[in-house]
Amino acid sequence: MDAEGFEFDRQIAVTAEGEGRYAAEIDPGWVVGGGVNGGYLLAVIGNAVRASLPAKPDPVAVSAYYLSATRPGPAEVAVDVRREGGRVATVAADLVQGDESRITVLATYGDLDRFGDDVRTTAVEPDLPPLEECVRGSDAPPEVLELAPMMGRFDMRFHPDDVGWAVGKPSGQGVMRAWFRLNDDREPDPVSLLMVVDALPPVTFNLGLMGWAPTLELSAHVRARPAPGWLKVRHETRNLAGGMFEEDCEVWDSTGRLVAQSRQLALQPRTA
Amino acid sequence: MDAEGFEFDRQIAVTAEGEGRYAAEIDPGWVVGGGVNGGYLLAVIGNAVRASLPAKPDPVAVSAYYLSATRPGPAEVAVDVRREGGRVATVAADLVQGDESRITVLATYGDLDRFGDDVRTTAVEPDLPPLEECVRGSDAPPEVLELAPMMGRFDMRFHPDDVGWAVGKPSGQGVMRAWFRLNDDREPDPVSLLMVVDALPPVTFNLGLMGWAPTLELSAHVRARPAPGWLKVRHETRNLAGGMFEEDCEVWDSTGRLVAQSRQLALQPRTA
Repeated sequence: MDAEGFEFDRQIAVTAEGEGRYAAEIDPGWVVGGGVNGGYLLAVIGNAVRASLPAKPDPVAVSAYYLSATRPGPAEVAVDVRREGGRVATVAADLVQGDESRITVLATYGDLDRFGDDVRTTAVEPDLPPLEECVRGSDAPPEVLELAPMMGRFDMRFHPDDVGWAVGKPSGQGVMRAWFRLNDDREPDPVSLLMVVDALPPVTFNLGLMGWAPTLELSAHVRARPAPGWLKVRHETRNLAGGMFEEDCEVWDSTGRLVAQSRQLALQPRTA
Repeated sequence: MDAEGFEFDRQIAVTAEGEGRYAAEIDPGWVVGGGVNGGYLLAVIGNAVRASLPAKPDPVAVSAYYLSATRPGPAEVAVDVRREGGRVATVAADLVQGDESRITVLATYGDLDRFGDDVRTTAVEPDLPPLEECVRGSDAPPEVLELAPMMGRFDMRFHPDDVGWAVGKPSGQGVMRAWFRLNDDREPDPVSLLMVVDALPPVTFNLGLMGWAPTLELSAHVRARPAPGWLKVRHETRNLAGGMFEEDCEVWDSTGRLVAQSRQLALQPRTA
């Protein structure tokens, strides 16, 4: 792996080993709480899938089921092309450590430049004050930053209404909004969006439920190649029930286009 | 397969063949346009997965990738248990005809009765007039019914604002709402909800885009065991762009509980 270039590209780098297998190194910089961020892991898998499909380099739909806890260190991504058509290809992929699959994935890839330019969006761009009026993730209390080394991987600027949880005053609304940009001003691309959809703290923090919210399943749709610049990210939950909650995410690029949508089903954090 | 009981149960019936393989018969009654309804097929797969996991009978999260067109007639569902834990199990499954996988699926199953009773829903129940003020699916023009034999499988009562497409006057809103009940008053259960989330006509009809909208990916979350009685179903799209659209679905039971949420990514119908 290359020591040059952007931090994020080094952290998601994969090395082809033949027969659809790719070696990866899970970076400790993406640790949060007791685990490794699921979005980062999905970008590692997404990067291996991209390597296996040269003519269809972009994730269009990706569904990940989290089977066991990934640890920092060596891992392998095994990619099995299930069907390749003219416009899209569908693969199954697993992130494996030792003999154990950590994450199992289905994904459809294509070339987003071939998907047309029409846009009829009724979704509304997240309502975020200008960057300088938002709250930097790096200003979080030291005990929060200590639990979440991953906060050092990007510049995240929270909507001022959504950060009360960090000082024990959750908003009571199941919403989390922030500006997002990777370190080194590394520009967003379709694979990095697989990380962005799972980078913010869980919306449950704003419902007063602090603690780890393990993802059971996350499906992401990449709807366009993002333009360079800051992203706007919005998470929302509307149904916290039966010990689970869904978390919907939208990512908007600097031109005001909705570039990714995702939904995950997670287990509610156990309350203290 | 048994000729007794409810029509729907006969149509999703599977017969164990050993080693995680189940024989199924894809019923021609679920044809729509040139294909077989994807929600019905997902219920067939879901029924085979249920048969393979006696202690975890309920779908919690299911993601389906549609690879090739399923035809009425014999099929096989192959289920591979990827991980079984105390609370949930995750499987990979394929619906196969001949040598070809038609649909490949990842799914997490559990026992919904063990998931707790807490509900903190901010989602709002679909706004549907009483049944008798809604428009019966069976009152659709004969040319619509001829293209969609599946409309004979259930009683569907549309919101009067959402049926203009059937007579060439689409609402212009990316929304479709209806009451839903299976034939024989067969009560809803977690597996039947996998069909319900894909039973309504595509929301794109209400945007003036008639025609088949092939699903690339559909993920459904079953959030509670539905109570007996009529279901309320609401579909919405917010981002028709790049030749694709997402379709979100909510299913509410007769007690006013949100029992299923789904999102699919589909290709826009080609306009005439």
